[in-house]
This record gives sequence, C-alpha cells and structure tokens, in this order.
Amino acid sequence: MKGILEHEVGEQVDLFLLIKSATKGMASNGKPFLTLILQDKSGDIEAKLWDISNDQVRIFQAETIVRVAGEVHNYRGRLQLKIRQIRPTSAHDGVNVADFLETAPIDKEEISSKITQYIFEMKNPNIQRITRHLMKKYLDRFLEYPAATKNHHEFVSGLGFHVVSMLDLAKAIAELYPFLDRDLLYSGIILHDLGKVIELSGPVSTTYTVEGNLLGHITIIVNEIAKAAEELGIQGEEVVVLQHVVLSHHGKLEWGSPKQPMIKEAEILHIIDNIDAKMNMLDRSLKRVKPGEFSERIFPLDNRSFYKPTFHS
Amino acid sequence: MKGILEHEVGEQVDLFLLIKSATKGMASNGKPFLTLILQDKSGDIEAKLWDISNDQVRIFQAETIVRVAGEVHNYRGRLQLKIRQIRPTSAHDGVNVADFLETAPIDKEEISSKITQYIFEMKNPNIQRITRHLMKKYLDRFLEYPAATKNHHEFVSGLGFHVVSMLDLAKAIAELYPFLDRDLLYSGIILHDLGKVIELSGPVSTTYTVEGNLLGHITIIVNEIAKAAEELGIQGEEVVVLQHVVLSHHGKLEWGSPKQPMIKEAEILHIIDNIDAKMNMLDRSLKRVKPGEFSERIFPLDNRSFYKPTFHS
Amino acid sequence: MKGILEHEVGEQVDLFLLIKSATKGMASNGKPFLTLILQDKSGDIEAKLWDISNDQVRIFQAETIVRVAGEVHNYRGRLQLKIRQIRPTSAHDGVNVADFLETAPIDKEEISSKITQYIFEMKNPNIQRITRHLMKKYLDRFLEYPAATKNHHEFVSGLGFHVVSMLDLAKAIAELYPFLDRDLLYSGIILHDLGKVIELSGPVSTTYTVEGNLLGHITIIVNEIAKAAEELGIQGEEVVVLQHVVLSHHGKLEWGSPKQPMIKEAEILHIIDNIDAKMNMLDRSLKRVKPGEFSERIFPLDNRSFYKPTFHS
Amino acid sequence: MKGILEHEVGEQVDLFLLIKSATKGMASNGKPFLTLILQDKSGDIEAKLWDISNDQVRIFQAETIVRVAGEVHNYRGRLQLKIRQIRPTSAHDGVNVADFLETAPIDKEEISSKITQYIFEMKNPNIQRITRHLMKKYLDRFLEYPAATKNHHEFVSGLGFHVVSMLDLAKAIAELYPFLDRDLLYSGIILHDLGKVIELSGPVSTTYTVEGNLLGHITIIVNEIAKAAEELGIQGEEVVVLQHVVLSHHGKLEWGSPKQPMIKEAEILHIIDNIDAKMNMLDRSLKRVKPGEFSERIFPLDNRSFYKPTFHS
Amino acid sequence: MKGILEHEVGEQVDLFLLIKSATKGMASNGKPFLTLILQDKSGDIEAKLWDISNDQVRIFQAETIVRVAGEVHNYRGRLQLKIRQIRPTSAHDGVNVADFLETAPIDKEEISSKITQYIFEMKNPNIQRITRHLMKKYLDRFLEYPAATKNHHEFVSGLGFHVVSMLDLAKAIAELYPFLDRDLLYSGIILHDLGKVIELSGPVSTTYTVEGNLLGHITIIVNEIAKAAEELGIQGEEVVVLQHVVLSHHGKLEWGSPKQPMIKEAEILHIIDNIDAKMNMLDRSLKRVKPGEFSERIFPLDNRSFYKPTFHS
Amino acid sequence: MKGILEHEVGEQVDLFLLIKSATKGMASNGKPFLTLILQDKSGDIEAKLWDISNDQVRIFQAETIVRVAGEVHNYRGRLQLKIRQIRPTSAHDGVNVADFLETAPIDKEEISSKITQYIFEMKNPNIQRITRHLMKKYLDRFLEYPAATKNHHEFVSGLGFHVVSMLDLAKAIAELYPFLDRDLLYSGIILHDLGKVIELSGPVSTTYTVEGNLLGHITIIVNEIAKAAEELGIQGEEVVVLQHVVLSHHGKLEWGSPKQPMIKEAEILHIIDNIDAKMNMLDRSLKRVKPGEFSERIFPLDNRSFYKPTFHS
Repeated sequence: MKGILEHEVGEQVDLFLLIKSATKGMASNGKPFLTLILQDKSGDIEAKLWDISNDQVRIFQAETIVRVAGEVHNYRGRLQLKIRQIRPTSAHDGVNVADFLETAPIDKEEISSKITQYIFEMKNPNIQRITRHLMKKYLDRFLEYPAATKNHHEFVSGLGFHVVSMLDLAKAIAELYPFLDRDLLYSGIILHDLGKVIELSGPVSTTYTVEGNLLGHITIIVNEIAKAAEELGIQGEEVVVLQHVVLSHHGKLEWGSPKQPMIKEAEILHIIDNIDAKMNMLDRSLKRVKPGEFSERIFPLDNRSFYKPTFHS
Repeated sequence: MKGILEHEVGEQVDLFLLIKSATKGMASNGKPFLTLILQDKSGDIEAKLWDISNDQVRIFQAETIVRVAGEVHNYRGRLQLKIRQIRPTSAHDGVNVADFLETAPIDKEEISSKITQYIFEMKNPNIQRITRHLMKKYLDRFLEYPAATKNHHEFVSGLGFHVVSMLDLAKAIAELYPFLDRDLLYSGIILHDLGKVIELSGPVSTTYTVEGNLLGHITIIVNEIAKAAEELGIQGEEVVVLQHVVLSHHGKLEWGSPKQPMIKEAEILHIIDNIDAKMNMLDRSLKRVKPGEFSERIFPLDNRSFYKPTFHS
Repeated sequence: MKGILEHEVGEQVDLFLLIKSATKGMASNGKPFLTLILQDKSGDIEAKLWDISNDQVRIFQAETIVRVAGEVHNYRGRLQLKIRQIRPTSAHDGVNVADFLETAPIDKEEISSKITQYIFEMKNPNIQRITRHLMKKYLDRFLEYPAATKNHHEFVSGLGFHVVSMLDLAKAIAELYPFLDRDLLYSGIILHDLGKVIELSGPVSTTYTVEGNLLGHITIIVNEIAKAAEELGIQGEEVVVLQHVVLSHHGKLEWGSPKQPMIKEAEILHIIDNIDAKMNMLDRSLKRVKPGEFSERIFPLDNRSFYKPTFHS
Repeated sequence: MKGILEHEVGEQVDLFLLIKSATKGMASNGKPFLTLILQDKSGDIEAKLWDISNDQVRIFQAETIVRVAGEVHNYRGRLQLKIRQIRPTSAHDGVNVADFLETAPIDKEEISSKITQYIFEMKNPNIQRITRHLMKKYLDRFLEYPAATKNHHEFVSGLGFHVVSMLDLAKAIAELYPFLDRDLLYSGIILHDLGKVIELSGPVSTTYTVEGNLLGHITIIVNEIAKAAEELGIQGEEVVVLQHVVLSHHGKLEWGSPKQPMIKEAEILHIIDNIDAKMNMLDRSLKRVKPGEFSERIFPLDNRSFYKPTFHS
Repeated sequence: MKGILEHEVGEQVDLFLLIKSATKGMASNGKPFLTLILQDKSGDIEAKLWDISNDQVRIFQAETIVRVAGEVHNYRGRLQLKIRQIRPTSAHDGVNVADFLETAPIDKEEISSKITQYIFEMKNPNIQRITRHLMKKYLDRFLEYPAATKNHHEFVSGLGFHVVSMLDLAKAIAELYPFLDRDLLYSGIILHDLGKVIELSGPVSTTYTVEGNLLGHITIIVNEIAKAAEELGIQGEEVVVLQHVVLSHHGKLEWGSPKQPMIKEAEILHIIDNIDAKMNMLDRSLKRVKPGEFSERIFPLDNRSFYKPTFHS
Repeated sequence: MKGILEHEVGEQVDLFLLIKSATKGMASNGKPFLTLILQDKSGDIEAKLWDISNDQVRIFQAETIVRVAGEVHNYRGRLQLKIRQIRPTSAHDGVNVADFLETAPIDKEEISSKITQYIFEMKNPNIQRITRHLMKKYLDRFLEYPAATKNHHEFVSGLGFHVVSMLDLAKAIAELYPFLDRDLLYSGIILHDLGKVIELSGPVSTTYTVEGNLLGHITIIVNEIAKAAEELGIQGEEVVVLQHVVLSHHGKLEWGSPKQPMIKEAEILHIIDNIDAKMNMLDRSLKRVKPGEFSERIFPLDNRSFYKPTFHS
C-alpha cells in the first residue's frame, strides 16, 4: 500500500496514519482548531481540523492511530492533507504504532550481530571487557533508540544503525592509516552515544529526561565506564583513555565536550561521527530534490542548501 | 628575618632560598648559564649563574634549598638578585622546604573546622552524607593542595582557603536572597574543585597528571559523586542535581563545563567562584603597586592593568 | 481581592484591569480585532476582542482602566482571558492607574532612607558631596523609575530597589574583602544607573528618550558627575575615578562601556550589578514553575531554561 | 644635510641625533649595555652601546641630543648604526629637540587657517559656536599634538594634519552626496579627536595620562561639549546630536564607542576617519618598499602585507 | 499621475499597478486568499484578495499588470491597499512593465558615456584594453541590471549607477591622495561587480542563477579577466593585479573574497564600494522618516535604526 | 649510513648535510655568528657557527651541502649539533641536493600510475577529459611539489602523495555511501590543490610566488579549469560543478573558499582533505613521542598536544 508521501497532489487518500503531534489553535472566529502532524513510514504531512469540540481535542492526541480520508493539496509549496473524514482506530483495525514509524534500513539482529563481531575482533582484554559489559547492560534500548531527537538518524534503531555505519567507516580508515589503534577506535564508537539511552525518553515522541538535560549523554556514559571498570576490577590506563575518547567526541568545548581530543583515535572518532551524520542528512535531504534544484536549507550543515547536478546518473 | 622581596634595591642579602626552577641557557660566548627562580614566603626573584660546570647544573636543581649571598638589583623595572656566593644546604643547616613555600593566610585546622561546621549546618541528609563522605575521603590532600597551578590561590592550602572564602561569601549572599538552597550551595562549593586533588600532582612544583589532562577535575569529581552515592545507597534527585551543580561550575561550555548552569544555585556558585578568584588576584597584584600607578597586566582578568588611586587610605 | 493571575483556569472573573497594550489585528474574515494585554499587580494576561468598531479601538487604548467580566482559559499552556463583557471606567469607579502597577517590594521611604544612610557612612568628603548632590537633584525620579524597560526590575521603584539590594550586597562583600574602598563602591552603585532617569521616559509604558538613544545612561551620568564636580568646586582625583567606576560598569566594551574596569571597585560593582539582576530574574521566573519542571527560557541568561528540583523545601 | 636614513649601508656618519628611547640590557658576560633608538626627521635607527658605566646610563637618556660618529650596517635586513664615538651636546652645539622630530607636511599656520575657514562656512549658529569655543580653548595643543602614539599620524602636528585631511575629504564626499549635513560633519571632524589633547601627555615621547587611561578621549570631549553648551547657553538638539556624532566615531562598541552611529553624518565620519588613517599608513609603509616587493605587515590593517606592483609609474 | 505611495491614508485609488509577488494563504475558515505586493515607480504596497478561486490564483501572478480601485489604509503602522476592484490589463490598456519599475536617477546613455570617459582617461594600455573589452562584451546587461537583489541599488540600471557613483568618488579621493593609481582604481571599479550580469537572472524579479550560486560574481569576473587577457594577448603583471583588485573587493574572507586586499587600490576600492552602498541605503531609508524620528532598522547596517535630527534644514 | 637524527646525544658525527637556512646574528661581544639549520632525510638540526668572517657568511648559505664533524648535544630538551669542523663540498664529494631532502614514502612512478588509474575509471567523459588535460599539462611539477610550505606533506612529492592518499580514502568512503558521484569526487581531489604548482616556488626552500600571494591556488586552478573547458570545447554543467567542488574545498569562507560546499561531493572532499592532513601531522608528531608522554603542540590542530597511551602495542 502506498504511503502518505507517495501520493500525488490532487490524489484521493484513505489511510491509517499515526498522529505525531496535535496542537490546538484559536481561529479568528474564536473557534478552536487542531493542527495535526500525521505520519507513516513514508514520512509526515500536516493537516488541519477546523471547528473542533473538546471531545475531539481529547481523542486526537499524539500517538493515536487514525483512519483518514481526504485529498493531498499543495500549500505554499508544501504538501498538506485536506481531511474529509477522520476517526480513531480500535483493536479491530489491526494496526499498531510500530507500523507507522520510520526505522533504520537494517534490522536489529543485523545491528546486534555486527556489534558482536567488532567486539570479538578486539585484542585488548580490558577494552573488550568494558565494551561488552556495557553493551550487554543496555542492549535492548541500544537497538531501539534513535541517535537523536532530530537532524540525523532520528528514527527507530537509528542509534544502532549510526554506530554500525561508523564502525564500517572506521575499519576502512584504519586500513589506510595503520598506526590507528582499532580496539580503542571500535570501543569508542560503540560507547560514544550509548548515554543516549538514559538521556532520551525512548524511541517514540523522543524528549530529554531530567538526567539528560542536567548531565548529558557524555557525562552519563563516562560515569558508566567508571562503574563498569570498578565492577570488572579493571585498573589499567585503558579506563582513563577510553573515558577520554568518549568524552571528547564532540570535538570542541563549545560543542559540549569538556576536553578536546588529545588521543589520535579520539580525533578520528569525532570526524567519523561527523561524516556519518552528514552523509545521513545529505542523503535524506537530496532524495526529495530533483536534478537541477537546490535542497531546503539543512540547519546543522551551517544552514546550507545543496544543489543536485543535472548530470548525475 | 626579612624575606627576599622585603629588601630594597641595592641592599646586601644573605639568605636561605628555595630553587623554584632552574633553566639552562647558552651564552653567546658558547658557555652555559643557569636562570634560577629563587623563592621564600615573601615571593620569588630571578638570578643568573654564569659560566657554570656540569656539576653545578646537577646541584642547583628545582626544589633544592640554597644559601645565597648577593645584592638586589633593578633590571628593566623588575627585581633581580645578583649572586656573589651560592651553596647547597645540608641537614646541618636545619632548613626544610615547607619554610619557603607561600601558604594560605589561615591554617589547615581552621579550614578543616570551618568546612565541618558548614557540613554540620546542612539539613538535607542526602546532600550532607555525600559531602561528608567525599570530604573525609580526600581531606588530607584537600587541606594541602593549591587551588590552581597559577593565576589564583596557587599556594599551599590554597584550595581549602578558596573554598572557605567562597562558603562565607555564599552565606552572606544567601541571607540577602533567601530563595537560594543553602545545602546545595554549600555542598556544591565544597566539592566543586575537589577533583583537583587528582588532577594536580601535589602542593609543590604542581603539574597536571595524565588523568587530569585527559579527564579534568570536573569529570573526575562528577564520577566520584556517582560512586559515593552508590556506596552510600543514595538514589534521590539530589545526586543528579549535585552532579549538575559541580559540572556546570565553569559557567560556559567553552570554559570546560559540558553543561551551562540550569539550577539557580549552580549559577550563583559560578559567580562566587569568579569573585573569590578575582579578589585574590587583585589583592595580590595591587599590593605590589604604589598609589597613582598601574599594576602589571593580569592575564585572566582580560589582560587588564589596574589603577591604584591616590586617595585611598 | 484576588489579582487576575491568582485565578484558576475555568474560574469566572469580574475585575478592574489596566490595559498595558492594545494592538489592532485583521482577522481572515477581513474584520478588525484587538489583542489586549491586561494587568494588575499580580501580573498580566492576554485577551482578544473580536469584531470591533473604530469607536472601540479609540476607547480601549493603553493606560485605560477597564472593568472586565469573563473566564480564565488555558491556551497552548499560557493563560488567556476570554472576555464576556468589557467597559471603560469613569471617575465614579474610584480606581487609578497606580493601583494596577507592579511595584518594588519595599516602598519609596525605605529606599530613600537606606540611600541616605549609605551616603552618611561615607568618609571621603569629595565622593560624599558629589553623590549627595546628584541624588538630591534627581531623587523624585530615582524613587519612581524602573531599572529597565524589560528583563529585570522593570516595575515602579525598580531602580531604587535594585540600588538598595546592590548596596546591601556590596556591604556584605566589603566585609569579606576589606581592601575594597567602601565609599567608592557605595557611590558607584548609587550613581551607576542614575542616568536612566534621563534615558527612559518614566515609570509607566517606559520607552527610550532621544537623548537615551543617542547618548545612553552611562554617558549621561558621567556628564552629570563632571558638572556636579564643577558646581561643587571639587577637583581631586576622586572625580575621574568615580566617573571611571560608573562608565565601566557594563564590564565590557561590547556591552556599552567605553572602558573596561581598571579599578578594583569598578570590577566588583559590575559583578554585583550582575548578581542582583540575575537573582531578580531567577526569582521571578522560578516562582511560576512547579518542582520537577523547567522554566521558560530567560533571554538575558543566555536564553537558558532553569530546573526547579523536586527536593527543595 | 643628509638625514640618518638617507645614508647607504657602509657609509660613514657624523650627525646630531635625538635619543628617542634608551633601554638597558645585560649581556651574557654580565656587563650592561644600552639599546638606543636615535632619530632625526628622516626617521629612526637602532644602535648598541656596549660595556657602559652607570654615568653613561644617566647621560644617554631619552630626549637627549647626541653627536654620533659611526657607520651604517645592515643587520638582519634592518639598518643599524655602529657607534664609533658618541657625546651629549651642550648649548654651544646650537641644536634643539624640535629639529629632530618628524612633523606634519603642512605647518601650524596652514592647519589653523583651514580649520578657521571650515568653521566660518558653517550655517548652524549652535554648532558653529560650540566648535569655535572648543577649538579656541585647546588651539595650542591641537596644533602640536600627534593624532596617536603609534600607527598613524604619530608625529608633531599629526592631529591637526589628520583633521584637515578629513575635512577636505568630507567636503568632496558631501558634494557627491548632498543630503549630508556639512555643518554637523565638519564640526564632528574638528572635535572628534580633540579629547586627545587631554588623553595624551604631549607631542614628544607621548604616553597616556591617568585621565586618558580611565576615561578616554571620547568621554573627555563629550564632557567638554556639554560644558561648552552650558557656558554658551545653548540648548537645542544640536548639543545631543553633536555629542552623539563624536562619541560614536569609533564605529563599534568593541572599538570603544558606547553607541554605534545612529546619525548618517556619524556613520560617514567614522568611515572618513578610517580612510585617512589607512591612506597615511599605506603611504608611509609603501614608501619604503621597492616595486615587485611586499611591505612589512601593518598591524592595524589586519596585519596585512601590501604589494607594490612593478608597473606603477 | 500620482504614484501609489504618494496617496494619503484614507484616499481613494484607481491605478495601474504591477504585481511584484503573489503568495497564496489559507484563511482559518479554510478558504484560500492571496497576498499581493503591488508596485509602481513610487514604491510598493501590500494588498489582500480574500476568498479567491483557482482561476484568480492563475491570473494574478507576479509580473502581471492590474488595474486596481480601492483605498489606502494604515495597518499596524504600515500602509495597506484595501482592494475594491481588480482586473488584469490587456494590450488595449497601453501599459507595459517598464513603466512600473524603479530605475536609477540617471539614464543608460549618461551611465554609458561616463564609463566611456573614465576608460578613455586611462594611461596604462593593458588595463585600458581589458576594461574596454569586457565592458563592450557585457554592455547591454551592465546598463540594465540592478546592483543587487535587495539592500542597495536594487533597481533597473542600479549596477551602472552604482559604478558611476563609485567612479566619481574615486576621482575625488585620488585627488586628495595622489599616490593612488587611477587606472587600476577606475578599472577595478568598472569590473568589480560585472560578474553580476551572469550571477543574477536579470533586471526584473531578480534571482540567482546556478552559476551565480555555485561560483559567485567574483569568481565569474576573475575568470573573464583571464580569458580577456588571453584573447587580447596581454601578459604583464597588470592581469594578476587587476584580478586581485577585483577578487578582494569584499574586503574579508568571511565576506566572500578569497584574499584580503594586498594592493592599496584594492583596499580603497572596498571602502568606496562600502560608502556608496551605505549612502544609497541611508538616503532611501531616511527619505521615509520625519525629523525627530528613527528609521526602520537597516539590516546590512548592523540592523541599526537611524535618527533624523529636528534641526536639519 | 645513519642520518643526523638517528644519532644519540653525546655521539660523534661526521656527515654530509644540506644547509636548509642560515641566519646571521650579532653576539653581545659585537661579533657576528650564524645559526644554521642542517638537514638530511632523517630530519633537521640546529647548529651555531661563532665568530664568523664575511667570507664564511657568503659560503655557508641555504642550499649549500657541507661536510660537518661535531657532536650531538641536548640543549633545553632539543637536539643541537656542536660543530667542530665544517667545509663546503665540491663536485669531488659526489653528493647532490636530492639526497638530503625528505621525500614521500611512495615514488613518482607509483603516484603517476595511481592517478592514471583513477582517471581511467571515470565514466563521465567531460570530467575525465578536463582532469586528464590539466594533469598532463602540469604533471612534472605535480609529481615534485610539496603539498604545503609547512604543517603537512611539506616534502618532495608531498602533493602527489597527499592526492593519492585522498583518492584511496575517497574510494573507501564511496563504497560505504554509494550515492556519492565517484567521478566528481576523484576529479575534485586530483585538481583541488593543483594550483599549488603555480602558487608555490618549487619543491626546495618553498616560498609563495606573487601570483600565489595575490590570487591563491584556488583561484588559479579554477581559472585553469575554465580555460581547459574552453580549449576542449566542453560546455556542460560539469564545468561549473567541478569548479565549485574545487573552489569550495577549504570548507569555509574564512578559510579562503569564496563559497561553502553546496554539492555533496564538495562537502566530503573537504573532510577527506582534512583527514589526510591530520593523519599525516599526527603520525609524524607521535613518531617522536614515547608511550606515556605528550607530543609538542601541533598548531594547525588547535595547538593541541596529543598523548601516546602506554598500552598501545
């Protein structure tokens, strides 16, 4: 079945959709209305519900699945769904939230098995044991969480997918620059964003937890490494160095790392993180652009707009 | 007995002094010489030792106590000691390193008892127990360490002295702004720089440890709070909030805090830290200046020079 | 009687309120409406007046007192007043503007007497005479003006209240750092913002005067000090130093001071100003927040949001 | 007679020269020496005086005129004077300081008469009277002072020469953009740097006064305009506007103006100041450069080096 | 006939106007409306067209000329046109687009003849030939294009007018600073923005071309100079120097010049460009302001608002 | 034979060495001396030549090969060569400059053949032809030049080696992110620094040419691409896009690119350039460091010092 974003302007729609957010507004005639963001795996679209009752406000809330009939419009260059009919779904409809969420292009099993393989390849036992211990402790959440609330890899299993892409890239780079320490690099990559499983609320309607706001994922995971080392009775310099690689991965103090990279693997980890995030953003943004046109501005890429040449094939 | 900086230009000197640093140079005639920084409690002074032998280089090293006879000169506006005679000391001289180091104006006992009193006044048992636990764990080093390697409170017991001054200031401010939580503020102040006992090498010839370089005192103490809470079985929100107050005390990301203050006590702690450091620097700098003159530039105060008015009494 | 912000959502309201501002809008049906900000001492609330006539636009202007019946609503998380009935008041209603304005928590007499006391304590006659002269010249306005048009102490007598709080804080700090010159510090505090009585238009609906825009309160008061010294026949270095303390109180060139502080009292005055403004903003902002929640972003505090812990008592 | 900089490398020299500065150094053999900067109108040159006595240090001080015999050397690409003989001069030598100072290319009379002419052309009586009053009050110093201690117009009568050049440029620009108010522009130019006659110590060995350091020439002259207006009984908006034009002439807050230009003549005055300073620096710097070469780096021009093309004629 | 902006508020209007832009909106009653910007040579005004059909959306597009009857309103301090009747024009109406566009105050012939004269005055044959060649190649577009899409000289022939104003200013400056090379300065001015005839789409509804976006007018014209030199067989240093003068004319790397000015004529060209743009913006902005009032904020002038004094005559 | 840097401190040396630079100084006894930097393939070392004659200054100039006997010293932690005997070499010594220069770890043939292979793999004929044309035109210099005058790849064939490393890295990345256009990426990499063969003077004692200073390697090669396209009669969008990829490769305007990357291959090229430069700097810097120690500060890496862990194997 065609997803909501796979319909043309003017086409009739009759679909199940998930309400991503619902915001109440007051029209100039004094009557309330709802601005809905509706989504399925193909993406999301805005729709307005005019002259609503208080009951409707209670019913059409975020994370509710609805059945909608209507028509796709073009409003100021953006798609909008003009609703003709809308109703909440019940158990009989046989739909569930997971069917409407965007997920990573590789599944949890593949992510899990690749991580296991990279841990297996490590030669330094201290690094290997800490990594395995923490990965095991948070595996379930690691495989489900997004890598961020917005900007890049902001979908189910985004965190695991991001880490696996970074590991593959790290492997390729380490082959070209053999003086890099692969154990440290792989472990740093696996752990660098693991604090997000505590910083963020979960894979759907993701927000920041109080701990996430006050400490941040970097401090959270650095504490976890310290505790893991204590539990495992590990005391070598690997602990401090691994903590450093993780805590410096934002690259600059003003980006939230309390120290700049001072280990070569920390430096390259920061760059690899950067590359994978940028490639993900560019890929997703340029998919929506025709040859000969410019993309929308991408805020974390210095708010730049990117051009898609006409001669690419 | 008069300290080295209490002599006038032209006056004859015969004193025991501690070599703070010794740097070898090569004169244009091809012969080596030593630039010595010699100190006692009154401060430090530069001296040159010309045409030295390899033996002398071995003898006159940092942390050696020497007996020096010579004369105080004015060289380009700075004092210099012209050495006539110099010899290393032996056990018979009855001198020891501690006699030559600048120390805080209040002694360890007073620092210790004031800290105890502030902890005693805390009403929140979770905050009180964590604070007492960590203070006990590192008390000896806390009472001896400087607050920094340079700039402010860079003397024996400087850390404890700085903390006590900040506590007194915090008490005065909390009386004027009673909505501040004193427990959180006092605890934050006591712990904020405690990581320095691991970040720095010790009270004499202070340098940074590897852990200090790679993690920094903020991350070190935040880890310690986490471990203390675990050991003491404390789980309330106090732990995260106290970690936040400590980790944000540099005030800005670019100054090394991974989060800006997001609790009012964190904000005021940062300011109190700032005030006490600035007052210490200004007091020490202006002591060396005559009315109607400008001080040397003070680097951490935006490299400004301060004027001492003629009408102060 | 309960103030407007002391009503619950859903509660019926029948109150006198002052129109703080009235902005005309055009609804999408082509008819004009008014957005009113209505206030009393408890704070202010937004209300809409739909389908208005030109007469109504003329009647319901800023600084008019109205009698309003209606109901308090929650609109997108902010309170809104749904107007059922509204009429302008007349002399018979026995209400006046001052009853609706927020004022400082201490009254003019107390402010005036505290200032007098601090001036009385000064020992340097030159500083004392200049301060007394200028305070006397502008006393009436000083006791009525706000400290700013927004952000902090933006209420009747806000300027005087801010100065008194700063003086008390200065006294506490000078006790802990006795090398500070109290006369200079007290005088600097009393005069630092006095130029605002010329820079700003007055205590209600405060705007900038042309002189305020083109010269600013710093230049204005520095000129006044020069003139006062001339009138009083004072020529000592105190005049230049006092001018410096006042002109550098914004702390940095990019914040509008033509010189950075180069006197220790100028440095601490800048910090005290900062503390009192921040405490005022944090106190007012966190009053509206429940434990366990974050405040709205506070623009002059780097646009940060502050957390109110759950364990404060 | 040839000036010191008009001699070739290797040429013998026998000249009167003014000691611009004398700095004592300590050679590696422990003996003192003097580094002299010697100048006449052609510019200045460095010279060393080895193995000096205390008497010599007292004799060869700044602002002393000496008779020197020696030879011009090339030392690391810079000229140096190798002294063979040196003696202080006496009254019999018939030389005086003014003969050795660089002065503006036009004389005081011409500066004075051009200023008078520009004031004469003003039509607004308020502006004209304030300008004439202040120019009269400080005329002597205005005609003698440099425009700065270094960088541009740092020579006798530099201030007056700079102002006259700016006036001529302003006149040319006002002809092309006739909506500019010439009175305001001319007056602003004449007064903009007049505070320097109080900020700086004088035309020779120029340093900053205490008042200059603590207030700066901008605040000084703005006060003077206020006092002039009071004395002359002038109260129109011209006073505030003229003060604004002068106080904003550095263009940006971080460059020391407490307000940015908010009057069109203030904006163009800032640019004209900039042009004349830059042209002066470029002219002097490129005079010392051969075609096909780059100048030394010019610090206030963003530390850039400028190229002199080979094809200029 | 009076232009649209020459009507008073409340006055009846019956005019031909050009649609500058037309943007579709959705009213809260769910019906579409158009926001039109209508212009003639006097300027532009906003108007709303409510409850429109799809046909109307197709008809009332940008670059269409319409006949409008209505009334001028004041809406939140800005003028708005309340439309009573509107129709598209046909050939019978005898109007054409050029009648509605703002144009430079001097005509194409005058621009062309002044440019010719300045080229004629050049003495260096290499510079003269390159300049003449490129001016000839792009003359038609040069005489029609605006100097920018917004901010300054954004009208028909704005480019040529800007260049001529700069040339006259350059001539005046070169008379005061005779060490400037006029040929290089004139040529640099004539060519500096010529790349805009390729960077921009044309004189009406101006946008950026793909080449303009990806290369920018600086790189475009620098390439053109290289090609011109090759075609004309010119090889002297003039080519590189002229390219440098043009490529550095934005003054700083962050403003899009790949090199900062390193030739004195490049430095002054940058300043002249700046002056003419600023004077143009200030002139246009202050024309709309009454004495005693502040202009709207001017974004490229650091978002400043400018004051129009009351005493200008 | 052991290179100069492969000798221990205290070891006797008798070697041919190349004078990299020779700087004349003046000792405090008034006699001239030379500071020589002597190099062979193992690196360079400083040496002093005291009390030299003018003849010696003429003989011991940069790019001269000398025979030196002496001893390696440790001077302030840096190696220094104490010269016992030194003489210039003649033809009989059978040595030549190339023997003393550091060169890339792969030879010219390998570089050349790898470039050829990458060009061969291109599928887009326009991109392929332009790349081949320009590579052919400048091949000789491309294979000899360094990639920079300092910081990274500053050795013979450094440019070619840097390009080949970048190509291999690009290939690995393009395999992981297949939406990248390999032709554009390879061509951009091959051409991005090719302008350096005109910007720089050559492989030995490298300096900037006038064209390099005034235009820079980016503008130079962008012009070359334009000319190549013209010569080859190529007109597709590839020309503009390829110019863009090359001109934006510094990534930011303030780093000398007149446009930021607006094509995804431009973005990744900038990152690849960055990675290879950083890896080169880190590799060379950490080679000189023992485990457990910090490197010297590396200026282009934000002046950071890097730690070499003790557990790397």
